[in-house]
Amino acid sequence: MPLQRFQEEADLLSFKAGQPIFILGQPGDTMYVVVEGEVELSLNGKPIDTILAGGIFGELALIDDSPRIATATAKTACKLAAVNQQQFIFLVRNTPHFAIQVMKTMAERLRRETMLRYK
Amino acid sequence: MPLQRFQEEADLLSFKAGQPIFILGQPGDTMYVVVEGEVELSLNGKPIDTILAGGIFGELALIDDSPRIATATAKTACKLAAVNQQQFIFLVRNTPHFAIQVMKTMAERLRRETMLRYK
Repeated sequence: MPLQRFQEEADLLSFKAGQPIFILGQPGDTMYVVVEGEVELSLNGKPIDTILAGGIFGELALIDDSPRIATATAKTACKLAAVNQQQFIFLVRNTPHFAIQVMKTMAERLRRETMLRYK
Repeated sequence: MPLQRFQEEADLLSFKAGQPIFILGQPGDTMYVVVEGEVELSLNGKPIDTILAGGIFGELALIDDSPRIATATAKTACKLAAVNQQQFIFLVRNTPHFAIQVMKTMAERLRRETMLRYK
């Protein structure tokens, strides 16, 4: 499982099924790693993606300092590790595997969005 | 200008205006940095993006080992630095700024594609 190191973090955030994690348009400077459970990303009520344990979301607002482009909701009860900008830079500097993992996730999403839009 | 270190590379690739750099569906394991000139990305004949000097393209196929999802054509005469997977991993490990720069580019594209698709 990718990003498994976060499973050991003591201070995980817990969300109940249906609870919002962040909302479209909010400022955001935090990325999340799903440690347990599932998170749904949606835009204008349309589901975009389901993030499973080991997956990340919220990286866009953290990387380019701009508002959330989707709403994230706990699809099941879930536990998340939050990564702020300072921690993110630290992780990229010290664990290149983390940077590659984030890029792989973004590549997969970008590939999917681009192909859906132009197909 | 981002990624300016590539301006000093001796072995740049030169393309004439209109010359293809890669084609949709081709296998690809190389990312490019535009050092001089402009590159157009298109899909099924529709322009997606123009990459200016300092910008990167082709990072998706390199990151997730899959076929090109767009066609890249020299929009003007241009000079490119090619980055293969081995060089990419090296750059991520040794220059975290490079990793952040690639992520910012991907974030910008992902934000644009997602917003266009769901607006």
